Amino acid sequence: MTLLILNGPNLNLLGEREPQIYGQQRFEEYLDDLRTDVPDLNLIYHQSNLEGELINLLHEYRNSVEGIILNAGGYTHTSIALADAIAAISVPVIEVHLSNIHAREAFRKTSFIAPVCIGSISGFGLESYRLALQFFVRSLPGT
Amino acid sequence: MTLLILNGPNLNLLGEREPQIYGQQRFEEYLDDLRTDVPDLNLIYHQSNLEGELINLLHEYRNSVEGIILNAGGYTHTSIALADAIAAISVPVIEVHLSNIHAREAFRKTSFIAPVCIGSISGFGLESYRLALQFFVRSLPGT
Amino acid sequence: MTLLILNGPNLNLLGEREPQIYGQQRFEEYLDDLRTDVPDLNLIYHQSNLEGELINLLHEYRNSVEGIILNAGGYTHTSIALADAIAAISVPVIEVHLSNIHAREAFRKTSFIAPVCIGSISGFGLESYRLALQFFVRSLPGT
Amino acid sequence: MTLLILNGPNLNLLGEREPQIYGQQRFEEYLDDLRTDVPDLNLIYHQSNLEGELINLLHEYRNSVEGIILNAGGYTHTSIALADAIAAISVPVIEVHLSNIHAREAFRKTSFIAPVCIGSISGFGLESYRLALQFFVRSLPGT
Amino acid sequence: MTLLILNGPNLNLLGEREPQIYGQQRFEEYLDDLRTDVPDLNLIYHQSNLEGELINLLHEYRNSVEGIILNAGGYTHTSIALADAIAAISVPVIEVHLSNIHAREAFRKTSFIAPVCIGSISGFGLESYRLALQFFVRSLPGT
Amino acid sequence: MTLLILNGPNLNLLGEREPQIYGQQRFEEYLDDLRTDVPDLNLIYHQSNLEGELINLLHEYRNSVEGIILNAGGYTHTSIALADAIAAISVPVIEVHLSNIHAREAFRKTSFIAPVCIGSISGFGLESYRLALQFFVRSLPGT
Amino acid sequence: MTLLILNGPNLNLLGEREPQIYGQQRFEEYLDDLRTDVPDLNLIYHQSNLEGELINLLHEYRNSVEGIILNAGGYTHTSIALADAIAAISVPVIEVHLSNIHAREAFRKTSFIAPVCIGSISGFGLESYRLALQFFVRSLPGT
Amino acid sequence: MTLLILNGPNLNLLGEREPQIYGQQRFEEYLDDLRTDVPDLNLIYHQSNLEGELINLLHEYRNSVEGIILNAGGYTHTSIALADAIAAISVPVIEVHLSNIHAREAFRKTSFIAPVCIGSISGFGLESYRLALQFFVRSLPGT
Amino acid sequence: MTLLILNGPNLNLLGEREPQIYGQQRFEEYLDDLRTDVPDLNLIYHQSNLEGELINLLHEYRNSVEGIILNAGGYTHTSIALADAIAAISVPVIEVHLSNIHAREAFRKTSFIAPVCIGSISGFGLESYRLALQFFVRSLPGT
Amino acid sequence: MTLLILNGPNLNLLGEREPQIYGQQRFEEYLDDLRTDVPDLNLIYHQSNLEGELINLLHEYRNSVEGIILNAGGYTHTSIALADAIAAISVPVIEVHLSNIHAREAFRKTSFIAPVCIGSISGFGLESYRLALQFFVRSLPGT
Amino acid sequence: MTLLILNGPNLNLLGEREPQIYGQQRFEEYLDDLRTDVPDLNLIYHQSNLEGELINLLHEYRNSVEGIILNAGGYTHTSIALADAIAAISVPVIEVHLSNIHAREAFRKTSFIAPVCIGSISGFGLESYRLALQFFVRSLPGT
Amino acid sequence: MTLLILNGPNLNLLGEREPQIYGQQRFEEYLDDLRTDVPDLNLIYHQSNLEGELINLLHEYRNSVEGIILNAGGYTHTSIALADAIAAISVPVIEVHLSNIHAREAFRKTSFIAPVCIGSISGFGLESYRLALQFFVRSLPGT
Repeated sequence: MTLLILNGPNLNLLGEREPQIYGQQRFEEYLDDLRTDVPDLNLIYHQSNLEGELINLLHEYRNSVEGIILNAGGYTHTSIALADAIAAISVPVIEVHLSNIHAREAFRKTSFIAPVCIGSISGFGLESYRLALQFFVRSLPGT
Repeated sequence: MTLLILNGPNLNLLGEREPQIYGQQRFEEYLDDLRTDVPDLNLIYHQSNLEGELINLLHEYRNSVEGIILNAGGYTHTSIALADAIAAISVPVIEVHLSNIHAREAFRKTSFIAPVCIGSISGFGLESYRLALQFFVRSLPGT
Repeated sequence: MTLLILNGPNLNLLGEREPQIYGQQRFEEYLDDLRTDVPDLNLIYHQSNLEGELINLLHEYRNSVEGIILNAGGYTHTSIALADAIAAISVPVIEVHLSNIHAREAFRKTSFIAPVCIGSISGFGLESYRLALQFFVRSLPGT
Repeated sequence: MTLLILNGPNLNLLGEREPQIYGQQRFEEYLDDLRTDVPDLNLIYHQSNLEGELINLLHEYRNSVEGIILNAGGYTHTSIALADAIAAISVPVIEVHLSNIHAREAFRKTSFIAPVCIGSISGFGLESYRLALQFFVRSLPGT
Repeated sequence: MTLLILNGPNLNLLGEREPQIYGQQRFEEYLDDLRTDVPDLNLIYHQSNLEGELINLLHEYRNSVEGIILNAGGYTHTSIALADAIAAISVPVIEVHLSNIHAREAFRKTSFIAPVCIGSISGFGLESYRLALQFFVRSLPGT
Repeated sequence: MTLLILNGPNLNLLGEREPQIYGQQRFEEYLDDLRTDVPDLNLIYHQSNLEGELINLLHEYRNSVEGIILNAGGYTHTSIALADAIAAISVPVIEVHLSNIHAREAFRKTSFIAPVCIGSISGFGLESYRLALQFFVRSLPGT
Repeated sequence: MTLLILNGPNLNLLGEREPQIYGQQRFEEYLDDLRTDVPDLNLIYHQSNLEGELINLLHEYRNSVEGIILNAGGYTHTSIALADAIAAISVPVIEVHLSNIHAREAFRKTSFIAPVCIGSISGFGLESYRLALQFFVRSLPGT
Repeated sequence: MTLLILNGPNLNLLGEREPQIYGQQRFEEYLDDLRTDVPDLNLIYHQSNLEGELINLLHEYRNSVEGIILNAGGYTHTSIALADAIAAISVPVIEVHLSNIHAREAFRKTSFIAPVCIGSISGFGLESYRLALQFFVRSLPGT
Repeated sequence: MTLLILNGPNLNLLGEREPQIYGQQRFEEYLDDLRTDVPDLNLIYHQSNLEGELINLLHEYRNSVEGIILNAGGYTHTSIALADAIAAISVPVIEVHLSNIHAREAFRKTSFIAPVCIGSISGFGLESYRLALQFFVRSLPGT
Repeated sequence: MTLLILNGPNLNLLGEREPQIYGQQRFEEYLDDLRTDVPDLNLIYHQSNLEGELINLLHEYRNSVEGIILNAGGYTHTSIALADAIAAISVPVIEVHLSNIHAREAFRKTSFIAPVCIGSISGFGLESYRLALQFFVRSLPGT
Repeated sequence: MTLLILNGPNLNLLGEREPQIYGQQRFEEYLDDLRTDVPDLNLIYHQSNLEGELINLLHEYRNSVEGIILNAGGYTHTSIALADAIAAISVPVIEVHLSNIHAREAFRKTSFIAPVCIGSISGFGLESYRLALQFFVRSLPGT
Repeated sequence: MTLLILNGPNLNLLGEREPQIYGQQRFEEYLDDLRTDVPDLNLIYHQSNLEGELINLLHEYRNSVEGIILNAGGYTHTSIALADAIAAISVPVIEVHLSNIHAREAFRKTSFIAPVCIGSISGFGLESYRLALQFFVRSLPGT
């Protein structure tokens, strides 16, 4: 099984940025852990700060992965175009967030992408990704 | 480790109610599966249709479990009292939902309890509970 | 034919409370009149001030009555859980109100339960119940 | 006793329009049934697609009927002028709707005329009219 | 003179819960102080986490107490049913809150019960109850 | 000088309707007084309950009167079409109301026609018309 | 092929009214041009300032034309009854506007009729009608 | 008869400020005209830029004038205290405005003082004052 | 102990204004009663109808009183400047109101000053002041 | 004459994506049809999923084309920057949409770009482009 | 060149009030620094806690200064009268704030005066004044 | 000292676009002036029309400049991702705008980036940049 993890804006600064909040681990390190834990899985990873490139990546992988784990960062709350991209492809997408977006500013309570994802996981830090991955591993046909 | 799974209103009808949507499995049957999969875990389960009894149960187990998985059903969107109860206790609570509440009616997009939970998982059907459980198993101290 | 009349919060005070508005008849007396007028009908009656008990009663009678007449009182405007309960059962429910809720405070104009009931009757005092009953008597199969 | 049934916009298409929803019965046929069932009653019927003609008709019959059953159709949600007309006359008016207006688009949840009617009945198809009629027959003085 | 103090959800945890905010005194201890200070007063006390039981208690004591001091906790902001119960009884009710509800989350600024109470006192910690009590002692006839 | 007084819905009932509020004088009687007081003035009067007929009348007199006094009744608050008609003609229009519309229901605070009238007069009963007339008499060229 | 062009309030003043904005051409003259350009087409034309007459005309032509081009003027933004009329007939309706309604007052951004039309064309002056006509000519079966 | 004309903030600049809009006449000059036209009338005039001084003046003259003409300027839209002052005195107050406040910014459409005045006149420039004065002269007892 | 009682707009009319609502007692008389009841207390009293003077008075007494009882009248709902003044000084302020502001117009439900006061008391008529005073007497250090 | 057709996010998937809704034709194929139908026209075509690249393209062609047909997809409803770009160039822009955006989710009813375009066409599928093109061909000078 | 610096409510407490936020420098001291740095400039300074006095001061200096630097404090967000005063005078006004008003409570995000000022500077502490001054020095004619 | 000036969408058209509003100077020319005036300063300049590239540039320079002057253009009002980028880096950012954004359309009054910038300067044309620069020169340590 092949999965795509797609990270949106500012997630490239993980590990360096506000470490008391986000921890000291860079995402690439965490990814290594995930890959070690589930060796049979083919985990593709991309990050972009550009809304349109995230759309391009969703399009590009739409026929070659069985599932997508998407942390759209700030675009979660503003991007109808990204939501349309998810709706336009048939591969299932799970929305993840490091922080509990419902416990923050009011403008973070609106998610344009949640209605077109199969589910949402937020608030568990980097473990949010692992939970999404576990769901795919368990529920996707042929796994 | 002892965990409490607490289900709110109408979840007692699971399996019988709108099976094309919610599946044909009763929650008790699913619970057996969970217990079989993680035999070392002590899983306590309660369901109530009364908002105040859910509060009572949160109070009752506040010192005897390490984590709580809460599906507050329709009270999710209306109960400040339930949110206050979660804030008043120190045991971590995870909010779960069977359906993706963001893809339904507008009034289901407001969650009073999300801001006081450590995280939220919605849209994965009964598997939402397993993901919450997996997080607790992996992250709680002493596990 | 068996029907359930289910009354919500504060309706137990009918006859005593603000008699210049609500009249001097207790609901039980009115019920006797209804039973006398339609002797072939089996009319079950329950009242509760607890939102969750109303849900319990809807669940309990879901397979044993042909129709439910529900006056949810103040819960009409606040209870998503009650609306979910009505949606979860297949027996038809009619919403009734003594007063014309549209002619009162703004917060009484929202009814969470109306969208899941087959119809609404409000403003006719106790006669609202008789109209609902007459609809069931005329329209239910086998009557 | 003389009653006026007043139908607003698009109700002249009943029976032909979207029969799977509204049924195959024209309103005039239904009216015959009503008249047959309550032979002592003098039932006057008018329909108009013009907001102002509905006002004219309310004015015209204000002294010659004992009650009015009004289905204002789309004007229900937009016409302050119609509501003012109901308030200006002393004959009691009941608001009826074929469909459950609370279960449809958000803009159908506002009724300008409900606050000035004695009561509202919606969701029972053509039977909504019979229920209103039954209330008048039972409650009007001298009946 | 007999007064009822009625406490709503989560107030049973007082003294234990977040002591840096709410202090280390349990409500029962505080009640003893009040009783000692005003020995001639008959102070009845009840607490419940159930909205409907609070309504039941208001009904039960409606003819046997001269005044009610009500801290409805989280139900303050959501319960129309509770407000209807206060309106339905003739005994005067004072709304009290430990914390200044206007200095907290926006959703705590709406009080459904304030409009049907004779007055509101909030922000004085446990002393809010004493102030309400002092008002009753001074103003009720026959005291 | 020729002026048009144009009255909208329900104003034909003046004198008969709620006399304790609106007085016992029919508009035609009041019109006679106005004509007696200002004999040199040619006062044309029309009333209609139909929004579209009011538009027709505005169009019809747009080249033959020097000023229009318009009481649009309930259409004041809902009719963009009427406002467009006023904007489309070059004769000045004054908005008048018998009652103080700002002291009534919230939906009467919006006036679509006020922004396209030269001024508004409300709250002076029938005298609102005289004030508008006095303004035209004093300010129109050639008077 | 027979098409109906239906114009709403104030469009009868075209050519005379604010010519710097709307041009100096009366609609009837423009209609002649259209008829000359597409001689095989049977173009029926009606205009009315009355909301209800527009509904009557939609009903009247519902079985005798293949398409309707509707400029509802100010009723676009306020008339649910007109929208219901469009939904009640099966002939396709195109919404047109002379001006770009999105570049004007905020209240012109809401169109009740857009959701029940097959498409909308606004901002092209009288050419908006030609574009609608061209769509019908090209897309209707049998053309 | 004695009347008070009370002008609020910035009206002291009349005549100098934006003369193309407000004209070149200072208010004191206009006042002389009014006094000349109605010589029997005792016209008292005050202006203040301070909200509280306007309240003081309303209090001060509450027993010595028969009517008050108030142009509250910018305080019209923001001052609940001024509205309370009008409600607290028994002398009738008429609200006037030079410009048509409904044709300007959205925040000028709210008037806190309109609901407590007997009527409103806006849009007639300085003539708004004369119309108010004419109403008082004609309607006050003993004139 | 020295306390400041500060009254805002229109409270100088107490006793004369609407006596059926506010009673026939002037505030100064009530103040005498308070001073008699608590002779050891130094009660300073000021009233002003000017928002800015209330700010000046808060500044002036900020170092010479132990507590302030403030009835800001209509400024309660509109004055951010007054709220800033309370936040800028360190002496504790209690908000009081004669009437239950939550039972009146919607615009009285917003209090800018409540969030910066230690507590709020409303609805007890003049007794609201005594309750505030009693809190200060009991809770301030050194009393 | 040279025109630019500019397509925004997800329109590159046309023909493959949800063919039951959007049809089985790719945009490039449709473009060939258009070019065949109007051979004298120079039709430039670009598509991008990046908001900023759409802005770049508008800038790039601002002096070399006579008209622009823009389908901004999801950016229609969220991009002020795109609207600013249209306002900054002098070449006329027409907004087109495949679907009727007014008949879909509420958030699609807001168009930031409509107010700065000369007109809008939506709901005609790919034919929306042809209508825009026909307008340019007919109305642009020198054509 | 003569400039007026005008400070609104509570700014007289600068240096003493919340020094950890606002610093320990009184405004008069800072003013001395400014005067020292730009000796050729005539800097007039006034502070008032009264909204109306600020208006008076704007009026008073409207012909004798070349520019005004205004920190309206809390009146920024509530005073239409102050905004009208700025619009009524022709001398340019710059809005300054010590703190970043956009990073504080939601009600501080609305500025009534910003739209009538030539520019806004906020968030730079006392240096906000210097920046405004530098703009005037550089841009005013004759400097 | 090294500063970064970062310009967002459409600012590359400065000098050419709407010169009557924005002036005839290109930004690069203005930049030369700034560099001449403050020769010791290292001024880096970038412009992009892509939201994500602006984020990339903020990241890229986060460790190599002492301050950033950001004119985010239209993204100011819509980009949470950009605001998150500013919050994620520790170098201070000043928000600047050429025009007074508060005097324009309502949607320009919301700034997502203002709360995470140290201050905002708007309305001074190109001089807004100089003021920001002057603040950095004066306040940054080591300058």
